[in-house]
Amino acid sequence: MKKIAAIAFAGMMGLSPHVVFGQDNALTDEMVAHANMLGKNAYASSLTEEIITSLTTEVGHRLAGTANDKKGREWAMAKMTVMGFDRVWEEPVTIPLWHRGSASLRMTEPFQHSMALAALGNSVGTPEGGLTAEVVQFNEYKDLVAAAPNSLEGKIAYVSFRMEDSGVRGAKGYGYAGQARRNGSVAAAKAGASAIIIRSIGTDDNRTPHTGSMNYADGVTKIPAAAISNPDADLLDNALKYGEPVTLHLEMSSHSHDDVVTYNVLGEITGTDEPEKAVMIGAHLDSWDLATGALDDGTGVSIVMSAGKHIIDGGKKPKRSIHVMLFAAEEEGLYGAHEYVRAHKEDHNDFDNTILGAEWDSGTGRIINIEPGVGPASLNVVREIGAVLAPYGVATLSTNGAKGQSDMSALGNAGMPAVNLGMEKTNYFDFHHTPNDTLDKVSMEAITHNAAIYAMFAYLAATVDTDYKK
Amino acid sequence: MKKIAAIAFAGMMGLSPHVVFGQDNALTDEMVAHANMLGKNAYASSLTEEIITSLTTEVGHRLAGTANDKKGREWAMAKMTVMGFDRVWEEPVTIPLWHRGSASLRMTEPFQHSMALAALGNSVGTPEGGLTAEVVQFNEYKDLVAAAPNSLEGKIAYVSFRMEDSGVRGAKGYGYAGQARRNGSVAAAKAGASAIIIRSIGTDDNRTPHTGSMNYADGVTKIPAAAISNPDADLLDNALKYGEPVTLHLEMSSHSHDDVVTYNVLGEITGTDEPEKAVMIGAHLDSWDLATGALDDGTGVSIVMSAGKHIIDGGKKPKRSIHVMLFAAEEEGLYGAHEYVRAHKEDHNDFDNTILGAEWDSGTGRIINIEPGVGPASLNVVREIGAVLAPYGVATLSTNGAKGQSDMSALGNAGMPAVNLGMEKTNYFDFHHTPNDTLDKVSMEAITHNAAIYAMFAYLAATVDTDYKK
Repeated sequence: MKKIAAIAFAGMMGLSPHVVFGQDNALTDEMVAHANMLGKNAYASSLTEEIITSLTTEVGHRLAGTANDKKGREWAMAKMTVMGFDRVWEEPVTIPLWHRGSASLRMTEPFQHSMALAALGNSVGTPEGGLTAEVVQFNEYKDLVAAAPNSLEGKIAYVSFRMEDSGVRGAKGYGYAGQARRNGSVAAAKAGASAIIIRSIGTDDNRTPHTGSMNYADGVTKIPAAAISNPDADLLDNALKYGEPVTLHLEMSSHSHDDVVTYNVLGEITGTDEPEKAVMIGAHLDSWDLATGALDDGTGVSIVMSAGKHIIDGGKKPKRSIHVMLFAAEEEGLYGAHEYVRAHKEDHNDFDNTILGAEWDSGTGRIINIEPGVGPASLNVVREIGAVLAPYGVATLSTNGAKGQSDMSALGNAGMPAVNLGMEKTNYFDFHHTPNDTLDKVSMEAITHNAAIYAMFAYLAATVDTDYKK
Repeated sequence: MKKIAAIAFAGMMGLSPHVVFGQDNALTDEMVAHANMLGKNAYASSLTEEIITSLTTEVGHRLAGTANDKKGREWAMAKMTVMGFDRVWEEPVTIPLWHRGSASLRMTEPFQHSMALAALGNSVGTPEGGLTAEVVQFNEYKDLVAAAPNSLEGKIAYVSFRMEDSGVRGAKGYGYAGQARRNGSVAAAKAGASAIIIRSIGTDDNRTPHTGSMNYADGVTKIPAAAISNPDADLLDNALKYGEPVTLHLEMSSHSHDDVVTYNVLGEITGTDEPEKAVMIGAHLDSWDLATGALDDGTGVSIVMSAGKHIIDGGKKPKRSIHVMLFAAEEEGLYGAHEYVRAHKEDHNDFDNTILGAEWDSGTGRIINIEPGVGPASLNVVREIGAVLAPYGVATLSTNGAKGQSDMSALGNAGMPAVNLGMEKTNYFDFHHTPNDTLDKVSMEAITHNAAIYAMFAYLAATVDTDYKK
């Protein structure tokens, strides 16, 4: 913590002037001093660690629509109430409810192996008793897409592509490799396959396969879809090299239920001058069900809740409100975010009151930069905020392309200005959507830093006088 | 491979004189040249990689006494026959047969969590339907041993000690921490516990718990024993900190069967002068059943088989025989090794013909040193062999304390001279006895190096004229 403390001290001492670009400053000295005080207190606090420890220990996983999801919301509402938020409430979100059930996979020919398997979220199950079929290997999703109709009749499609490290420029990372997870079942079913197995979309070598959401398409048969771990995919690849038919027995009882209602959870620090307008700092409360969702997105939940509490404890209300938003059902496809946009555009006609948004759904990396995504007249305001954050190791990017990350991208696409808080490289995709997404993977130092950045950012963004659309 | 090649070349060129200690040399120039040739060929070969890939792909796990164990023996016999060993045979070993069955653990109060669980080898199961009981935490095995009789009546004992990294001097590593696994059930049962759960004996943070053998004692109730992963142990520790009773539901169907017969598998390169005498290079063929046993002990199997094949291909028979020994049922307690000692002492009266032994059961680390464990008159002979290995990065330790590693310790304790081939530090205990013990964890470069060292060592040790007991 020494380095952080020193940086924070430098910020406190005003060693980095917040005057930028030779213009009149939008931020007053008072605002900057208060933000630095919030940062100092945040760095000295163990609150962020306490929140994520509480969430993962007391609640555990938070699969959308389940009893644990409800427990998570109750936990969040109670915490934010005790923390002293001016208002804490829920907003309903209707979602499809999916049940993971059991999932098992065995190689039966030419060799015999048990494999670790994770059903993909939204997948149907196999017929009772499972199905046994020969595997057809595809190196990449695009090769599967090119499979001829009926060419996979009675077969299990298998995409063996290994996700490259996203940190490498031009790498075939999460977005590229993830096509097999998201849309592979449709491509496989179009070619007649009985099921699809993919190599996990992950960078680790643990036998903890990566789940994640997948899609079906209207008019295309729904077939079971599941992921095997990288070591088991290596084994399957090695078995396929013998040139003999490789047969798998797949058994999955996953299935979907009728739609259910879950809720976005919001906490408000009410602004003094324009309380109806709000800067939103968000994370998603739901998680997959294989672990306690510490990285995805327990860190985000703890960062934004902790940031809010630091602002409350700072004793000075922002001029506009701050909304700490815990989105519902992000994993299944940003359901909470999409419903927020719909409800506040169509039902409440107040979407524009959410004047600026920033989300944390990036695990445990330290924030190292800020990218604006605001109107031209507000760009310098965000850069002034960036200058306040600079002594804490946060660089302001020269671009102005932020559209909101994760859930917040739904709001950004609907017209809300946004900032992206970018982070150092981590091994996030070793653990993402696996049984290994647990508290021990979290850097308490990093999330404490991030909560300090969020507190300073949110306070300044909600207090400075600007219209982020302009 | 560049560095290895350079070192091998230096050895080949005789840059390191094998003359040591100013005495008459036991090794002739011809022997040394032949050993260097064997080493050169071994470094240039992919055989070690091919063997371990074949074993893990075609056979998979090799839990002693199971059908897969038999498959492993058939694989080994066929391979060694094709390789051109002069004699390949099995020797019977009677072992208890254990069936892992299913194992599950849930925290039911005050919070609800599913935990990854591995039954310990030899453990009994729970009553059908499982058992639900409050946990009593012990920081270390010794604290559990100190528990008063009846103090754990109706409780589940839990040892939360985390194994320290064995590489640290004075650390409480595998041997120390492993007491809880090996003997915890006896201590817990003596205090009246219904079951024992331990934090895995491992250094990783994966939710892949470590199995391993455990013992019962005559006259002490047999209670179920299982391990949870480090992340789940952290979670349990955090839950216990709330100070409320923590209740677990444990369900295990593991059980023991009647004894069965398995076999040690041996391959012989018959010596020219004293064929009845043999240097033994060994590994264990069995493995736990959670993975393909690549590190434990697939590497050893591939190293000693490959070393034998390199010697065969070298075209020059050693003066005494070389026995490539694949021990049975090491994991359950060195059953194959103990039976070898018994049978060859009591039934065949030829135990002394095994004149020197060395085992590899250390995963994927590069061999970096050799320690003798021989009679004083032979010490310089082993040091001469060490001098041949020195250009390949193998230092001869000044001590003379080797008693044989792993299985070979049973033979060493029975009077067989031994050498230990020591290795660099690795992350072996991240994967040991877990579902993660798979082929991707193996350094093919390291095991190729190790096979070269074993080939040179075995050839020289079986050819040089000495009595290792003297």
